[in-house]
Amino acid sequence: MSYQASPPCPSKNHNYQPQTCETLPLYLEQNLPAHIQLGGNPEDWTVKEVGDGNLNLVFIVQGLEKSIVVKQALPYVRAAGESWQLSLDRAYFEYHSLETSARFASYDLVPEVYFYDEEQAICVMKYLTPHVILRKELIGGKQFPNLAESIGTFLARTLFHTSDIGMNAQEKKALVSRFAPNHELCKITEDLIFTEPYYDAERNNWTSPQLDNDIKQIWQDEEMIQVAMRYKFKFMTEAQALLHGDLHSGSIMVTETDTKVIDPEFGFMGPMAFDIGNYIGNLFLAYFARPGWQEDLQQCEQEQQWLAEQISTTWKVFTTGFLQLWNNKSQGDAFPTEIYQNHLGQRALHHAQSVFIETLFEDTLVNAGLEINRRIIGFAGVADFNDIPNADLRATCERRALKLARELIVNAKNYQDLNAVHLFAQSI
Amino acid sequence: MSYQASPPCPSKNHNYQPQTCETLPLYLEQNLPAHIQLGGNPEDWTVKEVGDGNLNLVFIVQGLEKSIVVKQALPYVRAAGESWQLSLDRAYFEYHSLETSARFASYDLVPEVYFYDEEQAICVMKYLTPHVILRKELIGGKQFPNLAESIGTFLARTLFHTSDIGMNAQEKKALVSRFAPNHELCKITEDLIFTEPYYDAERNNWTSPQLDNDIKQIWQDEEMIQVAMRYKFKFMTEAQALLHGDLHSGSIMVTETDTKVIDPEFGFMGPMAFDIGNYIGNLFLAYFARPGWQEDLQQCEQEQQWLAEQISTTWKVFTTGFLQLWNNKSQGDAFPTEIYQNHLGQRALHHAQSVFIETLFEDTLVNAGLEINRRIIGFAGVADFNDIPNADLRATCERRALKLARELIVNAKNYQDLNAVHLFAQSI
Repeated sequence: MSYQASPPCPSKNHNYQPQTCETLPLYLEQNLPAHIQLGGNPEDWTVKEVGDGNLNLVFIVQGLEKSIVVKQALPYVRAAGESWQLSLDRAYFEYHSLETSARFASYDLVPEVYFYDEEQAICVMKYLTPHVILRKELIGGKQFPNLAESIGTFLARTLFHTSDIGMNAQEKKALVSRFAPNHELCKITEDLIFTEPYYDAERNNWTSPQLDNDIKQIWQDEEMIQVAMRYKFKFMTEAQALLHGDLHSGSIMVTETDTKVIDPEFGFMGPMAFDIGNYIGNLFLAYFARPGWQEDLQQCEQEQQWLAEQISTTWKVFTTGFLQLWNNKSQGDAFPTEIYQNHLGQRALHHAQSVFIETLFEDTLVNAGLEINRRIIGFAGVADFNDIPNADLRATCERRALKLARELIVNAKNYQDLNAVHLFAQSI
Repeated sequence: MSYQASPPCPSKNHNYQPQTCETLPLYLEQNLPAHIQLGGNPEDWTVKEVGDGNLNLVFIVQGLEKSIVVKQALPYVRAAGESWQLSLDRAYFEYHSLETSARFASYDLVPEVYFYDEEQAICVMKYLTPHVILRKELIGGKQFPNLAESIGTFLARTLFHTSDIGMNAQEKKALVSRFAPNHELCKITEDLIFTEPYYDAERNNWTSPQLDNDIKQIWQDEEMIQVAMRYKFKFMTEAQALLHGDLHSGSIMVTETDTKVIDPEFGFMGPMAFDIGNYIGNLFLAYFARPGWQEDLQQCEQEQQWLAEQISTTWKVFTTGFLQLWNNKSQGDAFPTEIYQNHLGQRALHHAQSVFIETLFEDTLVNAGLEINRRIIGFAGVADFNDIPNADLRATCERRALKLARELIVNAKNYQDLNAVHLFAQSI
């Protein structure tokens, strides 16, 4: 069978027009597939622009019977203005990443896509309601009983099935070929997470003057910076699986019982530990921010305890799910069945899996530490800390998070499990 | 700047026709660019088919003034017959790999390409004369004073400049996207090098019955097989640099003073240690084959000594060249200049480089061991051993090579340099 080249990403969108609340109904009437019926006529529909993210236009369109979300890329970074240009290609990567995740994690865990218009960089999706962004809820001290199960499962399924362990080699290489051109969004990660926090870069942004000395120390911390640079290289070269690429608590929508992972425009083939570490890093950020939001000490401790449990349960659900898929695999040329299932046998398979998971755990801790650092030192902060009004209190929280980050980056090898990491976090 | 999608590989070649000695002159007259003048008319040209490799048609066309080589892919594996189908895409990957190598290693080290016809899977190149294939010369006991310098330089330049250390991230990702679809040839490597030698696979082919017990022991050697499988995963996931992908002594043409690396159709973005280990592994094969070819003991030792020096000198030329390029780099987002040159300084850079080279050395030894194993156990043997007429003598040579292979695979970490490896080789 000959390789079928995947259609390359669009690059040029000659007739692109950014939508407004006024133009969108007509566009939808002309373009939506017939089976997506909002109910009523375009003039009956309510359109709200709700994009509060960094990059895109996001509309909620309410028909008489059905509501949808319309996401359109802009040719620049919305949060930074038109001077920071960014191509429309990210809509292409987001759409294809969503479709791939849905294939393996199902619409239980990602929003259903109704329609994609490559030229207009528009993706039309199910309107998730009454879902809310996880980050805001964590700041509010809310708890979600299914969260760890959902995210652990999402990670296990998407990372396993798009890796050489679980996917046919030809198909996996086609994913590599398709997502490698997502260089613009990769570069944002490469710069903002892996480089700028480690020197006096212009875009850095921390709680000043409270943390000035801490940050200066970090820039002198050669031991930590060397690890950061090795992990930058790993991020750039280890095409292990299709990553979400930006899996923080702002990319997750929740209800009491439902969890959806959104916004995978940073999707590309990278090291599994990046996604897992990113998510865990953000839970640690929420953890260290608690004293900034919860004055009741006992309540604060209980909330931190819940977050710590989320972290270890997510890892446990992930590894259990990942290894279960691995045990039952029928394709995937890495750790092939000819060798393990049919030749060496079960004990050898378990040994290979242990070594694999041990390395992944170490890499996950390092990536979690790098995510913590960049959210406190770098360009893109998180509301968990940024919205704590008292800067002294905020800095105290952030300083403890930075201490954990250093420990995770420099001493990841010393930790056997996330309970041990939590003990360290409590000791800071 | 928006990403310019690279033209995908052809996949369908509707008007493809395999050439013969009779049809080729007319094809060339109609298709060669005007500045390539062979001299005289097509009927004056001499055409010989000389393809003795596994995969392709290779013609030498001699005009009155100039000679050229015409290489055309066949839609199957020539060595195995039409039942083993293989798409024509490999001509696409060979051409693009040659062009990329030439850009960085120059036509001093790879043959000049005159013309490429995608639909006919034809590549027209400079006729290298009086060059001969290195493997045959090594079997003959010949020595080449510039060989280590040439191959070390080829490796340093091609691997550095196509890696994230030396190449702009967008351009490097475009190479990843372009070469990832070379899944057919990658699969040959994944199967023949990394999998089949480690179980009783049908295509395996060793000196039997002499080595039967040795091979059975290898299939029981879980410690070694586990390492082989980890390195298969690394091969499939670590997109570090554009590899030649098949850098053995049959892919190198030499004269007393000149060296050219040919046949890069296995080109794809993989771990640097694969290319280096492949080459070094083949020099070790030549080393252990010497007693099969050279009866004079003293002469044999001298020839082995020269091969051992080739191995360590190639590594030394490679690392020196690679680090020199790294020290002077002006682009490449991994190990970025903002951090090392402008912030941490020289000592930190040297530390990062030492760690990098140390890992690369270990990975190189493992890959060399895997190459040795597969040439003795697997489908594709080498003439160095296969052509030794006395099977008992051949098996004795091969057994020693297998012992080194195991040591390299299992105990790579114990070796600081290639002289220490040579001492082990002498002790077997």
